[in-house]
Amino acid sequence: MSTQPAAATFLTTDVLQEHWLGHRALTRRVIEAFPEDKLFTFSAGGMRTFAQLATEMLQMIAPTMKGLLEDVWEAGGYGQPGPTTKAGLLASWDEADRLLESSLARVPAERYHQVANAFGMWTAPAFATVLYLIDNEVHHRGQGYVYLRLLDIAPPLFYERPSLMPKGTDEAA
Amino acid sequence: MSTQPAAATFLTTDVLQEHWLGHRALTRRVIEAFPEDKLFTFSAGGMRTFAQLATEMLQMIAPTMKGLLEDVWEAGGYGQPGPTTKAGLLASWDEADRLLESSLARVPAERYHQVANAFGMWTAPAFATVLYLIDNEVHHRGQGYVYLRLLDIAPPLFYERPSLMPKGTDEAA
Repeated sequence: MSTQPAAATFLTTDVLQEHWLGHRALTRRVIEAFPEDKLFTFSAGGMRTFAQLATEMLQMIAPTMKGLLEDVWEAGGYGQPGPTTKAGLLASWDEADRLLESSLARVPAERYHQVANAFGMWTAPAFATVLYLIDNEVHHRGQGYVYLRLLDIAPPLFYERPSLMPKGTDEAA
Repeated sequence: MSTQPAAATFLTTDVLQEHWLGHRALTRRVIEAFPEDKLFTFSAGGMRTFAQLATEMLQMIAPTMKGLLEDVWEAGGYGQPGPTTKAGLLASWDEADRLLESSLARVPAERYHQVANAFGMWTAPAFATVLYLIDNEVHHRGQGYVYLRLLDIAPPLFYERPSLMPKGTDEAA
């Protein structure tokens, strides 16, 4: 006997949008925290620069929005050369935010539970692809925190995200 | 006009459990990848060791399970000294996994949407606290990847998680 039906809701589509945009806002602040040259040149342990990591995150947004809206899962744009200046990277970041916000509001909720072959890379329900994008961003952003610490720059606080405290709760507590 | 009702489901409680345990399994492999001494001594940029980061993740599980099951949100155990050996850390990790698995199966789904003051630290619906724990783990695990790279050790592949491909999909694709 269980009080929990099989398909009980943990997260709604509304909260997903707020959560995702909150993560993206924090990542934007991490990009901003890098000095222009270090953003494109610094890394540790032979890894990619933070500009390269952010470009990867960025280039997954448009194809994923197309997949969610049209059920067409193509890699379009992913892996191409990214912005070459901090201002350009931030402008592309903001553009992707606007695309994400306007798109998510129109995704039919049932789409998240449809299985698709995403970008020729994996076959999974769309929600798993969305979770992958968010996890990938948090993972690589955490690496950016180490880069900043190695550069003796204090990164933004991880828990200062607009999405952590959903609207209507007591943010002062 | 929208095809998406306000409370449409993005993620079910069943998938949450699979997703979370999948992340914990990957983090376990990151702990395993560290040589015993480096786990407890190595860090970069003045940050905490990976043993300290993993202990933080670990010590949030039991209080969160108590909160989800009993609606009692106390910090019990968090911040105390953690395991001092790799075997001890892995054993505690496995114990927390068992607690997590047995607890999540019994959490009333409505609990996730109740607002609570968690550990005296923030006031939010329980789902936001759960998301915070997962995000915190992914964030710090990403930092562990940098530590491993700096130690010239190849970390496990980020996308090799049992949870990425939910059961029943074509994992070979």
